[in-house]
Amino acid sequence: MSSQIYHAIARRKLNTLQSLIPKNWLLDPLPEPLPLDVRPLVPKSTVLTPDELSITSSHDVTSLSQLIHSRALTSEAITTAFCKRAAIAQQLTNCLSEILFLPAIERAQALDAEYKRTGKTRGPLHGIPISLKDTYNIKGYDSSIGMASLAENPAKENAALVDILLEQGAVLYCKTNVSQTLMALDSHNHLFGRVMNPRNRRVTAGGSSGGEGALVAMRGSVLGIGTDIGGSVRIPAMCNGLYSIKPSSQRLPFMGQEIGQLPGIDKLGLQASAGLMTTSVRDCELFLKAIADANPWEKDPNVAFGSWEGQGEIRRKPLFGVLRADGITTPLPPVAKVLYETVEALRTAGFEVVEINAPGFKKYHSLANSFFGMGGFNHTFDLLERTGEPLIPWLDTRLRRKSPADLMQLSELHVRKSTLEKEMLGIWRDEKGRMIDALICPVAPHPVPEIDRWNGVGYTSAFVVLDYPAGTLPVRDVSNDDLMDELPESDVLGGWDSRNRDLCKLSSFVSPIILSCTPLLHVLNTWFPLPSGVEAVVNPVLQDYTDPSKTGHPNTNDRSVYLNTKLSVQVVAPRLQERRLYQAMALIDEVLHGASSESP
Amino acid sequence: MSSQIYHAIARRKLNTLQSLIPKNWLLDPLPEPLPLDVRPLVPKSTVLTPDELSITSSHDVTSLSQLIHSRALTSEAITTAFCKRAAIAQQLTNCLSEILFLPAIERAQALDAEYKRTGKTRGPLHGIPISLKDTYNIKGYDSSIGMASLAENPAKENAALVDILLEQGAVLYCKTNVSQTLMALDSHNHLFGRVMNPRNRRVTAGGSSGGEGALVAMRGSVLGIGTDIGGSVRIPAMCNGLYSIKPSSQRLPFMGQEIGQLPGIDKLGLQASAGLMTTSVRDCELFLKAIADANPWEKDPNVAFGSWEGQGEIRRKPLFGVLRADGITTPLPPVAKVLYETVEALRTAGFEVVEINAPGFKKYHSLANSFFGMGGFNHTFDLLERTGEPLIPWLDTRLRRKSPADLMQLSELHVRKSTLEKEMLGIWRDEKGRMIDALICPVAPHPVPEIDRWNGVGYTSAFVVLDYPAGTLPVRDVSNDDLMDELPESDVLGGWDSRNRDLCKLSSFVSPIILSCTPLLHVLNTWFPLPSGVEAVVNPVLQDYTDPSKTGHPNTNDRSVYLNTKLSVQVVAPRLQERRLYQAMALIDEVLHGASSESP
Repeated sequence: MSSQIYHAIARRKLNTLQSLIPKNWLLDPLPEPLPLDVRPLVPKSTVLTPDELSITSSHDVTSLSQLIHSRALTSEAITTAFCKRAAIAQQLTNCLSEILFLPAIERAQALDAEYKRTGKTRGPLHGIPISLKDTYNIKGYDSSIGMASLAENPAKENAALVDILLEQGAVLYCKTNVSQTLMALDSHNHLFGRVMNPRNRRVTAGGSSGGEGALVAMRGSVLGIGTDIGGSVRIPAMCNGLYSIKPSSQRLPFMGQEIGQLPGIDKLGLQASAGLMTTSVRDCELFLKAIADANPWEKDPNVAFGSWEGQGEIRRKPLFGVLRADGITTPLPPVAKVLYETVEALRTAGFEVVEINAPGFKKYHSLANSFFGMGGFNHTFDLLERTGEPLIPWLDTRLRRKSPADLMQLSELHVRKSTLEKEMLGIWRDEKGRMIDALICPVAPHPVPEIDRWNGVGYTSAFVVLDYPAGTLPVRDVSNDDLMDELPESDVLGGWDSRNRDLCKLSSFVSPIILSCTPLLHVLNTWFPLPSGVEAVVNPVLQDYTDPSKTGHPNTNDRSVYLNTKLSVQVVAPRLQERRLYQAMALIDEVLHGASSESP
Repeated sequence: MSSQIYHAIARRKLNTLQSLIPKNWLLDPLPEPLPLDVRPLVPKSTVLTPDELSITSSHDVTSLSQLIHSRALTSEAITTAFCKRAAIAQQLTNCLSEILFLPAIERAQALDAEYKRTGKTRGPLHGIPISLKDTYNIKGYDSSIGMASLAENPAKENAALVDILLEQGAVLYCKTNVSQTLMALDSHNHLFGRVMNPRNRRVTAGGSSGGEGALVAMRGSVLGIGTDIGGSVRIPAMCNGLYSIKPSSQRLPFMGQEIGQLPGIDKLGLQASAGLMTTSVRDCELFLKAIADANPWEKDPNVAFGSWEGQGEIRRKPLFGVLRADGITTPLPPVAKVLYETVEALRTAGFEVVEINAPGFKKYHSLANSFFGMGGFNHTFDLLERTGEPLIPWLDTRLRRKSPADLMQLSELHVRKSTLEKEMLGIWRDEKGRMIDALICPVAPHPVPEIDRWNGVGYTSAFVVLDYPAGTLPVRDVSNDDLMDELPESDVLGGWDSRNRDLCKLSSFVSPIILSCTPLLHVLNTWFPLPSGVEAVVNPVLQDYTDPSKTGHPNTNDRSVYLNTKLSVQVVAPRLQERRLYQAMALIDEVLHGASSESP
């Protein structure tokens, strides 16, 4: 089929999106060239008033909610500020897919009036603007998930979580950009283009909830909702230096989303989770408690009954476990180092951390991938072919139509899954039989990599197979020192490990000496190279920067690319114990960053 | 393959079983003919001492546990009493599959010694004998589930629930007989023969956990563990006049059972639950709380985290809903009447009961059946053919090899399931939007029917599809009056309804006048007729009574068969709210039967 159809849809879709940004919220012209870190452009522009800059820069949901409650701020003021900042974020990072600014501000006014009239807020989310991944249906808006054939087909009803957020008084003001098919770890598609990482345009913003990650990192949102079936919340959270929690699949309502899959197939394999990204660890608790208090099991039959208080806890003197490697890809030195530092910080603070030996962990990578491929991708290709839409380049070399798995094969996958689930129960006890309160491990075997170079999802997908709640916690920025160490060549574990090591190979033109010269590198990095062969329809505002004719560089293998990114750790708790996970994250966060509750 | 193989296995298996009953525990000779109700034979025999008769006749787990704790009774005394009574039950009802009497009594002695030494019991199950359906693996014993090809292959490790029961101090002393394939509603197979209903040998003991039902009804067990994927705990509980709870599938550990299915296939369809049958409603709480307190999620990764206190509750002034019919089979007059009486009793006691209109309910019957058949029964036929074992007669007309469902069909089934799950959320609110605390409905559209005449499982399987916890509660005996009413012929709903009405058609030779003459009927009923064509290997002790050459009667269509059976109701709560279900059952039980905590 002619590619004209998807081109036309993409053009209309992008035009509509652009048209919903008020003219006086446009950064016109955009600075050229854009800097590596676009975040400082926000205070430099005149779009936000000083108050709006302060509202969006200096608060988390917890403090905004207190300010609404004490009548120091209105929802209208907060919503307007975040709409404006989201508009700026969109212009700089391509992070949005649907814009609801006008109805959002009207709703905020109505919520303010309600509070004035009744003297009661609806709870901690009253008046708080919350952004959602494009997958969540909002009545009257597309859930195109970046695919032309799903565009221009507004949802007829709200997702269950959307209904709950509205009941709780949240203000929905935008939906965010994703990866085509949701199966790529870069948020890139032919409808809206590629989401750029605001703090370092050379590295990926992650996916598939990459629009959320970039938007929250731009502080165009104070709390973003994504979904995670391989790492799609935790990966963009790591890429954008955010806190995140992927709960167990039955914790937050997932029902009522467009996920681009054959309807019902999701029940045969791995269960995806709704998850959240925040700027403070305490907001994770605020949000998860608010949803639990709303009886979500009355809206989505897949949600497990249970109050927030019933979701586990760490002991007064918790015991931590550390899982340093998955046996498939050895973490690169900066990743190993930040894990080491986290463990040492806990030990220094008086907590015991034991080494976890989990040989079963290496089996998760291929098992998760078998589940992901069980449908043979036929629904995906059907959707694409309907409008002549090609795969994005990263997927083009990876996705092929296959025969779907049959009942015997599906059953066999579940036997493997059950065997591993049972085996992994053992990681929650140390050799002395003591209970491990929470597990700490890498989010990925590499730092935030260049665009389209995320290498495998084993460290995150394992906890989807296991359905354990897992969160990410930003620890600190990459330093020059982090880039000096080498892994021994003799220990290469296999193909995944070899590709992973490519991510820290030194190129000939960047020596360790240059690495210590950060200001120079900032200039070098102003232009980011795209992988060759990228031919995507992109946001025209950003076209200059994603036009391959202007780049065409190969991947640089320049370690300096990792400067201006955050190093994170992953924290994990047993299934359906989200409160235990949160308490562990809060404790680790306090040990690492002190009592500060804002993202470091 | 020659049927010699399965015959030989069956003979050996049955001989082993018989040989494990001590000679002085045999009822020798059995009275001939056996009475309709075999229960009075227990006190008439000399096998049990007066103390043992009292221990087994007059207590539930709650009171036995108190007596152990207060040192008024030892576990050894209790275990010995129940082993003896189980041996009698086996001789009269064919209810056992594996016998562990000797090791059980040794374990009881050890537990008594432990209590004496430490001064501590392990909890409320310390020293209590508990019987298990044959499906549960106990290391060193078969889980043949009544199929020759699975026999003589002792389990290598314990089921997760077995490990927990042992940790909690329970004494495992026998496993119980089931239906071949677990897919029949009569517990009949070629290894152990047919389980007979102890209170009325003309009617079914139910299945697939029918051995449990008969054993507990004989008070050869004080608490039995079964499994339920269509009604396999609730149906035998109804047939045997017991309390039962089928929890949501993630509540009790299910892992480590032989269910005769292709490994892993259970994860693709409906989730079975472990469930329990008791003689008192309060024992349901005792058991479910004891298991929750044992952190079962640390043993079986499928168990949801959550304390007993976190499993919901009814309000101080609960609102009940009543669902009187499923729209597929209209309940026969005795069933409708006992539901009516239950509702009126609640209303008289001051509780509001609203009528539930759930048009979606009628879709469950065929959906559940589609799930049950999705594997095409190929694994079952493979197992049977390995030893030349035929299907039991009831299954022989119903089960055929088919092609397994493909991925598209499986996905479509889950779409239907999800749609219905969402629709049924609506039943938990009345028209005024008030929350319904619990639902009351029939267990089946008919009273306990004659052998091999259970008609459909729609009223029970619906709550497997929905994964709602559901329990049965015996209300009262069938009376002569119950058998007088007629359903209007004009309202036949379809095939299932028509077959259901056959169960209350009057035969020419039993008039309503005779029905009022109970003593005569007891004589008439002394011999029970088997459906024609039954050719099963049966327990030789019972052979006289199941030998078709001695019966050959067609189904009698004699309503008097329902005398000497219990009428029950089903109580249902939302998913994972087992405590809410229990509290509703306890309240209804008290309204119906007063403060008495023993089975009526």
